[in-house]
Order: sequence, then structure tokens, then C-alpha cells
Amino acid sequence: MNYFVHEKALCESENIGPGTRIWAFAHVLPGARIGADCNICDGVFVENDVSVGDHVTVKCGVQLWDGVTLEDNVFVGPNATFTNDIRPRSKQYPETFLRTTVEAGASIGANATILPGIRIGRNAMVGAGAVVTRSVPPNAIAVGNPARIVGYADTRTSGKVNSSDTSKHAGGIQKSVVRGVQLHTFNFIGDMRGSLSVGEFEREIPFSPKRYFLVYDVPTQETRGEHAHLRCKQFLIAVKGSVHVVADDGENRAQFVLDKPNMGLYLPPMTWGIQYRYSEDAVLLVFASDFYDPSDYIREYDAFLEKILSNESSPEC
Amino acid sequence: MNYFVHEKALCESENIGPGTRIWAFAHVLPGARIGADCNICDGVFVENDVSVGDHVTVKCGVQLWDGVTLEDNVFVGPNATFTNDIRPRSKQYPETFLRTTVEAGASIGANATILPGIRIGRNAMVGAGAVVTRSVPPNAIAVGNPARIVGYADTRTSGKVNSSDTSKHAGGIQKSVVRGVQLHTFNFIGDMRGSLSVGEFEREIPFSPKRYFLVYDVPTQETRGEHAHLRCKQFLIAVKGSVHVVADDGENRAQFVLDKPNMGLYLPPMTWGIQYRYSEDAVLLVFASDFYDPSDYIREYDAFLEKILSNESSPEC
Amino acid sequence: MNYFVHEKALCESENIGPGTRIWAFAHVLPGARIGADCNICDGVFVENDVSVGDHVTVKCGVQLWDGVTLEDNVFVGPNATFTNDIRPRSKQYPETFLRTTVEAGASIGANATILPGIRIGRNAMVGAGAVVTRSVPPNAIAVGNPARIVGYADTRTSGKVNSSDTSKHAGGIQKSVVRGVQLHTFNFIGDMRGSLSVGEFEREIPFSPKRYFLVYDVPTQETRGEHAHLRCKQFLIAVKGSVHVVADDGENRAQFVLDKPNMGLYLPPMTWGIQYRYSEDAVLLVFASDFYDPSDYIREYDAFLEKILSNESSPEC
Amino acid sequence: MNYFVHEKALCESENIGPGTRIWAFAHVLPGARIGADCNICDGVFVENDVSVGDHVTVKCGVQLWDGVTLEDNVFVGPNATFTNDIRPRSKQYPETFLRTTVEAGASIGANATILPGIRIGRNAMVGAGAVVTRSVPPNAIAVGNPARIVGYADTRTSGKVNSSDTSKHAGGIQKSVVRGVQLHTFNFIGDMRGSLSVGEFEREIPFSPKRYFLVYDVPTQETRGEHAHLRCKQFLIAVKGSVHVVADDGENRAQFVLDKPNMGLYLPPMTWGIQYRYSEDAVLLVFASDFYDPSDYIREYDAFLEKILSNESSPEC
Amino acid sequence: MNYFVHEKALCESENIGPGTRIWAFAHVLPGARIGADCNICDGVFVENDVSVGDHVTVKCGVQLWDGVTLEDNVFVGPNATFTNDIRPRSKQYPETFLRTTVEAGASIGANATILPGIRIGRNAMVGAGAVVTRSVPPNAIAVGNPARIVGYADTRTSGKVNSSDTSKHAGGIQKSVVRGVQLHTFNFIGDMRGSLSVGEFEREIPFSPKRYFLVYDVPTQETRGEHAHLRCKQFLIAVKGSVHVVADDGENRAQFVLDKPNMGLYLPPMTWGIQYRYSEDAVLLVFASDFYDPSDYIREYDAFLEKILSNESSPEC
Amino acid sequence: MNYFVHEKALCESENIGPGTRIWAFAHVLPGARIGADCNICDGVFVENDVSVGDHVTVKCGVQLWDGVTLEDNVFVGPNATFTNDIRPRSKQYPETFLRTTVEAGASIGANATILPGIRIGRNAMVGAGAVVTRSVPPNAIAVGNPARIVGYADTRTSGKVNSSDTSKHAGGIQKSVVRGVQLHTFNFIGDMRGSLSVGEFEREIPFSPKRYFLVYDVPTQETRGEHAHLRCKQFLIAVKGSVHVVADDGENRAQFVLDKPNMGLYLPPMTWGIQYRYSEDAVLLVFASDFYDPSDYIREYDAFLEKILSNESSPEC
Repeated sequence: MNYFVHEKALCESENIGPGTRIWAFAHVLPGARIGADCNICDGVFVENDVSVGDHVTVKCGVQLWDGVTLEDNVFVGPNATFTNDIRPRSKQYPETFLRTTVEAGASIGANATILPGIRIGRNAMVGAGAVVTRSVPPNAIAVGNPARIVGYADTRTSGKVNSSDTSKHAGGIQKSVVRGVQLHTFNFIGDMRGSLSVGEFEREIPFSPKRYFLVYDVPTQETRGEHAHLRCKQFLIAVKGSVHVVADDGENRAQFVLDKPNMGLYLPPMTWGIQYRYSEDAVLLVFASDFYDPSDYIREYDAFLEKILSNESSPEC
Repeated sequence: MNYFVHEKALCESENIGPGTRIWAFAHVLPGARIGADCNICDGVFVENDVSVGDHVTVKCGVQLWDGVTLEDNVFVGPNATFTNDIRPRSKQYPETFLRTTVEAGASIGANATILPGIRIGRNAMVGAGAVVTRSVPPNAIAVGNPARIVGYADTRTSGKVNSSDTSKHAGGIQKSVVRGVQLHTFNFIGDMRGSLSVGEFEREIPFSPKRYFLVYDVPTQETRGEHAHLRCKQFLIAVKGSVHVVADDGENRAQFVLDKPNMGLYLPPMTWGIQYRYSEDAVLLVFASDFYDPSDYIREYDAFLEKILSNESSPEC
Repeated sequence: MNYFVHEKALCESENIGPGTRIWAFAHVLPGARIGADCNICDGVFVENDVSVGDHVTVKCGVQLWDGVTLEDNVFVGPNATFTNDIRPRSKQYPETFLRTTVEAGASIGANATILPGIRIGRNAMVGAGAVVTRSVPPNAIAVGNPARIVGYADTRTSGKVNSSDTSKHAGGIQKSVVRGVQLHTFNFIGDMRGSLSVGEFEREIPFSPKRYFLVYDVPTQETRGEHAHLRCKQFLIAVKGSVHVVADDGENRAQFVLDKPNMGLYLPPMTWGIQYRYSEDAVLLVFASDFYDPSDYIREYDAFLEKILSNESSPEC
Repeated sequence: MNYFVHEKALCESENIGPGTRIWAFAHVLPGARIGADCNICDGVFVENDVSVGDHVTVKCGVQLWDGVTLEDNVFVGPNATFTNDIRPRSKQYPETFLRTTVEAGASIGANATILPGIRIGRNAMVGAGAVVTRSVPPNAIAVGNPARIVGYADTRTSGKVNSSDTSKHAGGIQKSVVRGVQLHTFNFIGDMRGSLSVGEFEREIPFSPKRYFLVYDVPTQETRGEHAHLRCKQFLIAVKGSVHVVADDGENRAQFVLDKPNMGLYLPPMTWGIQYRYSEDAVLLVFASDFYDPSDYIREYDAFLEKILSNESSPEC
Repeated sequence: MNYFVHEKALCESENIGPGTRIWAFAHVLPGARIGADCNICDGVFVENDVSVGDHVTVKCGVQLWDGVTLEDNVFVGPNATFTNDIRPRSKQYPETFLRTTVEAGASIGANATILPGIRIGRNAMVGAGAVVTRSVPPNAIAVGNPARIVGYADTRTSGKVNSSDTSKHAGGIQKSVVRGVQLHTFNFIGDMRGSLSVGEFEREIPFSPKRYFLVYDVPTQETRGEHAHLRCKQFLIAVKGSVHVVADDGENRAQFVLDKPNMGLYLPPMTWGIQYRYSEDAVLLVFASDFYDPSDYIREYDAFLEKILSNESSPEC
Repeated sequence: MNYFVHEKALCESENIGPGTRIWAFAHVLPGARIGADCNICDGVFVENDVSVGDHVTVKCGVQLWDGVTLEDNVFVGPNATFTNDIRPRSKQYPETFLRTTVEAGASIGANATILPGIRIGRNAMVGAGAVVTRSVPPNAIAVGNPARIVGYADTRTSGKVNSSDTSKHAGGIQKSVVRGVQLHTFNFIGDMRGSLSVGEFEREIPFSPKRYFLVYDVPTQETRGEHAHLRCKQFLIAVKGSVHVVADDGENRAQFVLDKPNMGLYLPPMTWGIQYRYSEDAVLLVFASDFYDPSDYIREYDAFLEKILSNESSPEC
């Protein structure tokens, strides 16, 4: 036995990885599986149908109920609370418990509450005290009761362009830390009769569009996008209201606030894009360089990262 | 001793019912009274002036302080937190602790917080992570911080009438699963000059009114009604905005969304009625068949259930 | 010829009543009929198919086109302009001209414009500069472009009850100058949970209802009502928003602003009632003492006045 | 002299066309030129520098000041008032009077006021009592104070597409009575997360755009457009709010209400287009097939009609 | 008789000044008094109790009723219409007619309507087609139905400062054409917690205040100010919303739009100041250099002009 | 050893004050320092770099992590949760943990969550279930997720002036329980044209200002102020919207709701002032008696209390 159990702990499982430590007043039931190099702190309770990966930290006062899976490198803050029954009644048991999965690298903040049947995406961050009622996508930061996405982890703020920088009427193009992503500012003419903003394809926008689409009536708590294109180029304009856009090339990530009809964001192929924090009146106009082709979409972030890596290792790309 | 105490638990009370199990690192003080067939999980702490009924489940990490009563069949989720002092200061003690009662069959969600002096009604459901600052009526479902009622448990959705079903201009009467409760749709005439909705007493509405009352300016988080009448018949119309009405005959429960001036809901005597989710601009018009008589009101749901039962067992009723 | 024609006038008609004066530069075509004791001022032009009653004043710069009828005691201000073709094009003539009637006692303000096909009701008052695009009911005062009703002429303000007078919570009944019309203020109970207003039939409201109706979604420029009942009693409550009600017993007229759910207006039989100035959110609740009976309605103000007179002259009524 | 002057009229000009009649108390100064078959009614005053075409009707009480031109078939209603000095002061005279032109076939409603320097377009209709402060385009109907365009005369309603016709989610193309003008309805996907509308260039929209422009913050009373293109194709979408568009091929005219982001209107070259009745929040997106080229614009409706006629008579077009 | 009466006119008065001309179809009653060098055009009608000054122009189709006074240099446009009875009824006459005065130099636009009992101030300009329901102050320009002030005559636009010029964050002082009047722009600091604007008396604002006042809840159609101070200095800031300010030194006049909390306008003594076009939410903060002293106010524009002249002619001032 | 450790507890530190009790399943690491007369309840976990003062209560289920300091008389409710890493990831440790300090006398409600790096001010009260994301100032009461200040503890309500008391139009000065603080009500004149409020410096406001500042666009959750001045006097007016102001002389504390432009609050030197609950549209105008001088500010409440005490003990002050 190359793992540690505190003398005041109660560890009934033998399925514990090397280097793992189980501390005082913790209680692990016989069926639980815990990986290597974990830290199970004071007072933690682990039921039987539970799987914990390697390098996981579970702070004090947490319970892992039947149905909970923590992948590698997960962090669970103190008193964070899992559940496995959506409508609990004493002495009434569901046929099967709802399953909860926390993907690799994600963190659950202190005293957060996770409703049953939820998936917390890779590298996501649930804020302290959050009450999570819906699944959280990869890298997202979710806080509040109920929890809402307020940002994305590890976004390079150097790429962020705040709106006052772009209020100059003279047009221009501003590069970002994300490969190929550019923020365009167009001239506009405003007078008593209204305002007019003009952009020219190929001259100002680096492609000729094959498609446009308009996204509108998006509830402010919604996230859209969350995919990449293999070949298609896109150009985004918030023609009304404002939208936050996160662009990610697999290495760097940056956030842009589109809030003027004369601002546009260019997303080259192989850019993971996310749109969220739509203002109530937002209308997002997107130009795309290609016709719709479902095979052009990469919809899983893991697959996107793999594709990026394979591209980088292939010399001719 | 026909109850179980884990070897790592500390049970100082002997007032424990048969079949009850007390698990590791739990601590029960001498004055506590715990009923039969309960489950007191790891790490639970129970003070002296505490009363727990039969078939109660208290999950890990919960404390039951002096002044807490859990009636039969209550469920308390993990890390749910009770209190007994509204303005706690260290080393300053109130003369008497505020009392908290969780009525029979109610459930407290995981990591919920219950402020002191609160009553959680029979069969109510407090959501995970909710912070309960006011008493919760029987059957109500309350979530959020602060907690608000968002529904009623075990409401038969077969009785629910959504508004599109009633938009037909031709009037009609629709029965529900609740004994005697009927949803009326009246003719209305709408043109450029406005809309007109007409109802006739005795012809369309099954009584002649002695009283009307108007309920308005109700904050959206308020619940009104929550009583039954012994003899008085009522007819409810949301003349502006929308109101949710739950009707309950002691056996079946149904929810109705009143959101049109030409919809009316008939509640016969011996119907438990609840109005809630008033829209900001809601005005509820109620016709009553009798003048006001306080002795006609049943204001406690338990008393209502008892009266129903006694009526059913009396052959001549 | 017992009427006067100024030497600079041109009067080609002989159908002119005694005492009438026709002034300089006026021009009356042969077919026109003008009553007694009229004043046709400088520069007025009167076509052939025109009928003018007795005691009518037509100020300078007015034209009376084919199709215009002015009843007795009408006043037409200077430069007020009539029309008889809704889409005039040069040298294109409609088959028949639209007819315009100004009923007895009405006044047309200076420089007002009257579109074709309109009836200006008895005793109505069109404001100076108004552009009248729809018929104006009896006694109404209409101003603006397009003209809207802003009041009723000769309304006794002693009968007007402003809202601050009725804000007292203690209920009460206030008589008015109009026979039998009473403004009721009901008790109401208001607290943090909302407001409740209650009324009792037969005890507080002087009849037991056979019908209710709800009037809502009325455009603010609309007038509703404008009729009397032979036998039916009515009780009006603005359960939301505000409505102006004019009540008229044929002799006295009073205006009431209903703007609180705990205010109700009782209209006895043989009361001419008008509702107008509906606020955007107004819902008017009306209780009626009888089922619907079309023969109970008097829809013409003239008929109402006649009925009042015949009632007064009949001793047994 | 083959025209008629009433014996009470004063006609000092001899430049009067055959068949024209000048009625009592009218006064025509020596320099005025009046065409054939006109009707100059009682009390009209005509100054010297005035030109009136053929078949014109001028009703009573009108003055035609120096600088006023009425083209053929114009109708001027009674007491309609022209002006020729924008800031009149007694005894101060502008160097030249502002000129007012009423183009062929237009009508001026009764008692309307026309500010100086204004052009009333061919076939336009000024409403009774309107105060016209800006030029009125051809065919437009203008009413109110100040006058606003509320429609276009002789617009074929068969070409009008009301919004409920286009609410079907399946996309489609609907032809209109105007040559080549098509209303496109695009597929859209709407769910709780928002709505998505997609359109494809060259596949669905019959060109590839060289430019887009966004029109926004337009006061609701403004009219935009009012021109045609020789070669450029356009595609219009109201991405927010609503816009009325009138399209005219010189022969037929139709009005479209764009009020959904998934509706688009295709305007081929040689289509006279008008946009008006912008809602307060409207944003109009326009795709154009060509880069900006001022020589591609036809800005005068008469020139547009001429070009249409010359195209039709040229066989190879 | 050194005035001209057209042979087709009817002039019954002999109280006509030299050089005055009275044209065809005009009719002047015996009691009217008309000054020198006037022009009374075709079809004008003048009653008895009427006083007209020198150099007055009255265009065609106008009537001057008993009670109307036109001071020197007044212009009355064609078909403009006066009144003298607020509630006219045929054959009912008020005891005395309401009086209307048009002060020296004012102009009444074509087809305007002037309600009875109104005073049109010196040099004011009533727009064509306006319906004037309240008195108009000196120099004001009023248009619409009902008429509202939209500007002041002869305001030097060179002194107008539009808001974009002052949006630069660096503070500064901008002179105007009006003697001593200066527009200040202050630095401001804005961050996530809000914005902070700071100004220093004596350092930045050229006096130390003795008083401040706040003007708020002003309906958008209202004009405030309209006075000058003999000694008091003022400094105006629109701390919320926007206000138009006209400043006038007796020789030059300029208008300023205050619409930012970091803009302030300095008014030295002997400046005639007017504030109007308050936005709905406007709050105007005024610093004054002196305590309130009613003898410091000049409330009549004529008196202000006289004082300016006497100051200029006194060498020591 | 004059402190108590329950037989089931694990106390590895010897740095425990007299009278302190450590209860079952609690675990104190060797480096922790705990003062006298404390109560460390069941299941509490205390790390090494932790300092606990005297008379502190820590209820069940709480962990005190490295970096947490609890000063004397602090209360920590059950399951309240501290943190020390703002972006926790498993097996990644910050160079230093963020420190959390709960100042003397403060209370943390049951199940509250305290984010890292936060200071809870002296005597503050964190509500049950609150999620505290920013430091809480002395005496403040904070509730909700995220926690917002809703009041201040021990505020003398006798000093509170509700707005209805000050609605009298006649001006006046009202003293408060806080030394020198006065609420001024100024005369104002309100009529149909708007309202005017006037205040005079030195006469009504007890100083002549050297500076003014305007605070606006403040998010409703922000608190501003929270400092005292040594010499500078201030006068506060909410010229738009409403602001809550707490004034504190070190002995008494009072809250004022400024919600009228004609109300002003005078704060003499050595008054601790707090502004919060800004309404969305609030603009706060502040007059200051001195130019800006950073050395005049006392920014720490403790320093303020000390200064007050030293002033009181110095006879000449």
C-alpha cells in the first residue's frame, strides 16, 4: 500500500492510487476508485459508485455521491456539494442516480452546488458559491445563483479591444494575439438623417462572402458559436447592441466586445469561436467565405485541439 | 437498542427510534429526540433541543441546532444549513432561539440555507443552493437566493391549460382533474376600437355574486390565497396581466395560468386555492357567491385535508 | 325680401330666410337654401347643394360646398374650410360628393379643416386650427391635427371628482349634479403583499349584477359608450389605468376620472354615458343589472333628449 | 378671347388659355400666365410671376404668389396657402423669392400650407390641413403638421406582402407585380437559445455583393432611398425593427414591410426604390452588387421614367 | 387723402396713414385705425376696434377682428387667422372680446391661427400653419399645432458649440460671439465605479458663488430664464440630460447646447439668457455670483435693450 | 493546559488560549494560533497559518485555511466557507495564498462563502448564504449572491429622515443624532413650467465652496465615500434619482435618503461618510469647502475612531 490514510480516517476501499493521501475524518466506501497522487481532505465522504482520476484535490466537507466522476486534475473546493437526485424525497429512491462528470482540469469553487446530471467541461471554472443548474462548456467561467457564464479561462486580455479604442471615426485594422484574428474599424457618416456605415469586400474585408447569417433574440445568458471551421473564414459585426466574442487558436485566446455597427471581427479558419453576453437588443451579422458544409465544422473542443496539433506537426501545413 | 450507531459516531442520546442508523463522525447530543427508521449520515451534528420524526433522512454535513423540528419523512440534503439566530454575534445569545419547523414530507435541497424562525410547509421542496428567507407554504417549490416560489410539487399537468388552448374566440368550459374546478373561456369581440369580454351570471357563471374583490399591485414574489372555503364559491379572472392559480381538492392538484380577460376559473367550495406568480401589472378580479364570513375560511392545509377526509367518510356528504 | 344683401355681395339664391344678412364679396349660388336670422360674412362662398338652418353664423373666408348642411345655431369661424372629395384630382369628379353635416348648436373654430363625409355632433366644439378626420360626437371638444377629443362642452365641473379627493381609504358615496349618478369609494387594504379592494352587491352597489363586461386594449384616441339605457343600471370600475367618464341626464353633465380600483361610478337608467381618454393600460370593469337586451339601448343623443322630455312631461313617471 | 371672366372678377392678364374660367372676386395680375381649361374660383389672387399649366383647378381663397408654378392637371384645394419668403418681415424683401413648384397631376388638400422653396412631386397628394415643410417626392401622400409621408398614391396592393404571409419558416421566394423585385424568406432556426437566419449569395441572393451598408438611427419621419440604379443590384434586410419599402418599375408600384431579419427584398437595376417609416430601433442592411459609382444613380423620378421608356423602345435591351 | 384705395376695395374708415395702400376686395370698417405706409392686400377684412401701426403688411385673406392690435412693422401672412372668442357659439356674444396684440417687428406666418387673448412678442416669428395657443416671447420662433418654441430669431450660429467639439476629455475654455460668454469643458475621470467631474471656483470658474440653483422637471416645451442681471454672474451646467441656452448681449445672440456634466456656460452680467428645449431628464445647475436680489433682474427685453444702449452711451461704463 | 479538547477532536497546536473549547471531529494543525475563550465546534478544520483572536465562535463545518485571520469577537456561522486561491487548479499552488481578515466584532452568516483576499470590516454582518466577492466595509450588512450592502449595523434610526418628512415646501434645517450633521430642505417653486430649487452659500449652507463634484453613472451596487475629512466640509445633494448616505461621528450613526433636488446634507469635518444604493439615474452633487488635498482624507475607519478619541481627550479641541 503506497498511499496514505490518516489514523482518524476510514478508508474501506483498496482501489486507491499511489501517492494519494486520505485525511482525518474522511470516509471512503469500499466500491470507490481513486487515482494516483490525489488529496482527499478532512471530513470528505466518498460513496461506492464513484470514480476519481489522478492528481485530483477534494477539499474538506465535500461528498462524492454514487454517480460522480472526477477526471484527472480536477479541483473541488471546500464544502462544494454534489447531488444525484433532482427531486429528493426521504426513503424514495430513483431507479438510477443521475450521473455528474467533471472533466479533466476543471475546478469547482468553494461551497458551490452542482445539480444532478451535469457535465462540467474541460478546464472550466465554477465560481465559489455558484449554483450550477446546466452543463458548463470547456474553459467557461460560471458564477452566481443560478450560475451564468461570465468569461472564459486563460483568455489573453492583451487581445481585448475595448470600445473606446475604436471610437475614432477613421477606419483601421487592429491585430490580436490570436493567429490571424483582426478587428476592423470602418468609417461612418452620421448626420441628421441617420448614420451610414460602409464596408467593402476584398478591399476591406479579406474575402468575398458566400453566405451571411444574422443571430438575434439571444437571451443574455446564452452562449452561441462554440465551434471552429476547417476552411471557412468569418467576419462578425454587431449591427445593433453588443456581443462578446472569444477567439481561440488553440494556443492563445482573446475576447472582443463588438458594440458598434462600424466594428467588424475577422476570424480565419481553424479559430475556435464563442459568442456570448449578447445585449438584449443585439443583432450579430456574420459573413462567411463558404457555403454551408457540415463537414467543415469542428464541434468538440478536444477535436479542435487535436487537429491543431496534427497540423503543426505536419511540415507542409 | 434496536438502532444502529457507527463505531466512529458519537451518540449521547438514548431517545432514538427503532431502525434508525447513525453513521460515522456524526454527533448526537443527549437531549435530542430522533424517530424510527431515520438515516443520520456522516458528519451530522444534532444539538439537544431538536426533534426528528420517523423516516427522516439527514445527509452529510448537516447540523440540527436547538430549536429545529423535522417532522416525519423529511429529507435534508448534504451541507444544507440551519440557523437559529437572526443577528448572530459571538458570545451574545438571544433569550430564546428562533424555532425552525420542517413539516412532514418536505425536502431541503443540497447546500440550501434556512434562515431562523421559518416554517417549511408539508411536502414543500427547497431547491439546492436556495437561501430561504421566508416561510414556504405546503407543496411549494422554492429556489434561488433569496428563494422564490417557482411551482408546486405534484401538480397534475394534465389539468394544466396553456394559454394557446384557450385562445379560440368561441367560449367554452373545460373540466380539470380537480373536483368541480372548471376553466371558462368567454366570447370576446375585438376590433380597432378595443376589446370587449362579457360574462353572464347564472347563465355562464354558476352562481350570482354577492361580492367582488380586486387584487392588484402584488409583488411578483408574493403568494396570495392559500386557503379554502367551506361554502363560498369563487370565480377568478385575470383582467390584466397574468396569475398562476393552483387548485387542489385534497387528492388532485392542477395549475392554471390565467392570462386573458376572457378566461375565468371556477373554484367550488372545499377547493384549496393558491395564487402566485402575479405579473407586474396583474389585476385579479374575484366574484364570490357569499358575503364575507370569517368562519367560512379554512386557512391551514392540514385542517383542509382533515375536513376532506371527514367529508369523504361521512356517507351523506 | 326681408333679408339684407350688401351691395358688393352676389346673392343668386332667393331661398333666404328673414333677418339674414349677406355681406360684401360674399357669393351665394342659386340653389343654396339659407334659413332665418343668419349672418353670412364677407367673402363667404356658398354653392348650390347647400342647406343652412336658422341663426347660423358663417365668418369671413369660408366656403360651403355642395353636400354641406349646417343645422340651426351653428357657428363657423373665419377661414374654416370644408371639403367634399377625399382624393381630389383636377378635372376628375366623384359620382357623388361626400356629405358633411354640422348638427344644431355646434361650432367650428377659426381656420379648422373638416374632411369630407364627416358629421359634427350637436353642440360639439371644433377647436381653432383643428384638422377633423373623423366624426365628432355630440358635445365633444376636438382639437389638434389630427383632431382628438379633449373634453365635453358644458360639463359641470362641480360634478368632477379629482382623484386626490377619493384617496381616502375609508369608503363613501359622493353625489353629483347628474341625477342619480354617484361616485363610490370602497375600502381597500394595502400592504407589502399587494392591495385588495372589495365591494358588496346590494349592500354597497345598488343592484345585483346579471352581467359583467370588461373593456380593454382601447386606443387612447377612442371614445366608447355614447349611449343610454332605458332600464339597465350600470356600475363602472377602472380596475387598471384610468378612464374619463362623462355622465349626462339631459340637463346636467359631469365628468369623472376613474383611476383607482377602489372607485366605482353608478349610472342609473336614463343616463347618457361616454367613456374616453382610456390610458394605454386601462381595463374597465362594468357590472350590469340586466342581461343584454338591444331594445334597452338608446344610441342617438337626440332620441335620448326626446325620451327625457317625454318622461318629464308624463305625470306618472 | 375664348376664356371666361366673371363680371365681378378682375383679370389684368391676357395670357389666359382657351376654356379657362375666372370667377367672382378673383384677381389676376397682368404678368400671370394661365393655361387652357383651368378653373380659377372665387376670391383667388394670382400675382405676376406665376405660371399655371393646363387643366388646373384652383379653389376659392387661394393665392398664387410670385414664384409659384403649377404644372398641368394640378388641383389646389380651398384656402390652401402658398408662401415665398421663409422668414418674412414687413417691408423687407428677399433678393429673389423662393420658388414653389407643384408638378403635373399633384393635388394640394384644402387649407394646406406650403412653405416656400418646396417642390411637390408628380402625382403627389398633400392632405387637407397639412403643413408642408419639405419637398414631397413623386406619388407620395403627406399629411399632418409638419407633414409626413404616410403612403404612396396608386401603389398596387396586390404586390403588398404583409408580414403574416412570410412568417412561414420554410424559406421561399415570392414574386411581385414590380418587374424583377422579389421578396425572399429565409429559413431560420429558433429555439430557446435564440434565432438563426441564414442566406446564401449567388445561391439564394441573385448576386455576389461588393458592398454592404447599414442604415440606422433614422428618425421615424425620414425617407431614404428615392433613387434607382442603372446597373447595381441591391438586397435589403431589416435586421432590427421595421422599414417600409416602395419599389417601382415605372409601370407598377408595390409596397413591402420589412420587419423580420429573415426577410430580404431584391431590387434589380432600374428599380425606383423608396425606404420610409423606419421604426425607432430599425437597422437596415443593404447588399449592393457594385462598388460605389455616382454615375450609376438616377436621382430624378422623371429621368427614371424617361430611361425606362427609352429602354422599352430599344429592341436589343 | 394721401393713401390709396383700390377701386374694388371698400374703405369706410378715414383714419388711414399716408402711403398706405388698400387693395381689391378688402373691406375696412369705419372705426378701424391704420398707420402709415401699410399694405392691406386683396380680400382683407378689418373690423372697427382694430389698431394697426406703421409699415405693417397684411396679406390676402386675413381678417382683423375687434380687439386686435398690430404694432409697427408687423407682418401677417396670407390666410393667417385671428380670433376673439375662446368658445364661440352662434348669436352668443362675450361681454368683451379678448384682445390680441402683435408687438413691433413680429411676423405671423401664412395660414397660422392665433387663439384669442394672446400676445406675440417683439420680433417673434410664428411659423406658417402654426396654431398659437399661448403667448410667444420676444424673438422666439414658434411652429406646430399646438405651437412650440423651436428657436430664437437672429441667433448667431457662429456662437453655437455642438457637443462633439467638446467631447475631448482635456478641459478648455471657448469664447463666443456674445460679449463675455464662455463655454468651459472640464476634465473628467470615468471608471467602473462611475464618472467624476471636478471644477474649481476662481481657478476655473471666474467667480466664487454665492448661490446655486437647480432647475428640473421642466416639460420639454417650456422656456425658462428670459431675463438679464445687472451685476450677477452665472455659470450653468446640465448635470443630467440636455438644455439649450440662448445668450444675448443686445447686439449678438448665440445658442449653446449643454448636454454633458463636464460642460459649463459662463454668463456675465448684462446678458439676456433663455433656457429651453430641456430634455425629459434634464437637471440644470446654476451658480450665481450674488445673493438673490430682485432689483438685479431685468425682466423685460425692451428694458434690457434700453439699458444696454444707455450703458454704451455713458463714457465711464 | 487550561483549555478543553474533546476526546474525539485532534488538536496539534499548543498555541490555544485559556477557556477555549475544541469539540469533536475538529482538527487543528500545529501552527495555528487560537485566542482565549473561543468555541471551535464539531468538524471545524484549522490550518497552520491561521490566527484567531479572543472570544471567537466558529460553528460546525467551517475550515480556516492558511491566510485567514479572525480578530476578537468574530462569529463564523455553520458551513460558512473561506477560500485562499482565486483561481484554484489541482496541484497548482500560488506563490502566496491570498489573505482574508475578519475584523473585530464582525459576523459571518451560516453557509456564506468568502472569496479570497477579502477584508470583512469591524462589526460588519455577512448574511446567511451570501457570496462575498468584495471587501465589506465596517458596520455594513451584506447579503445575496453576489453580496450587496443593504444597510449598516446599529444605525440609529432616530437620525433617519424619511423623505415624506421633508416634502414640505418651506425650507428648514433638521439636526440629527450625528454631531453637526444637518439635513437642509430648501424652498422650491414648482408649477406647470417645472420646479426651481434655490440654496445660498454662507447663508444657508455653512461654508463657501472651493470645489464641486458630480458623481453619476454609478452602478447600483456600488458604495462610494467611506472616508472622513480632517478639515473639509461637504454638502451633498442628489440632483437626480436617490442616494443613501450614512453619516457617523464615531459615536452615533444615522442614515439619510437623499431623493429630492431640494434636500441637502451637510457633513462637517471629522464625519465618516458613506454613499450607497445609488438609483440607476442618480447624480450626486457635492460641494466641498476646500481644494483637493490628499492629506485631508482619513480613509481607514479605525484611524478615524482613533482620531476622534484623541480629539476628545485633548482639552482644547
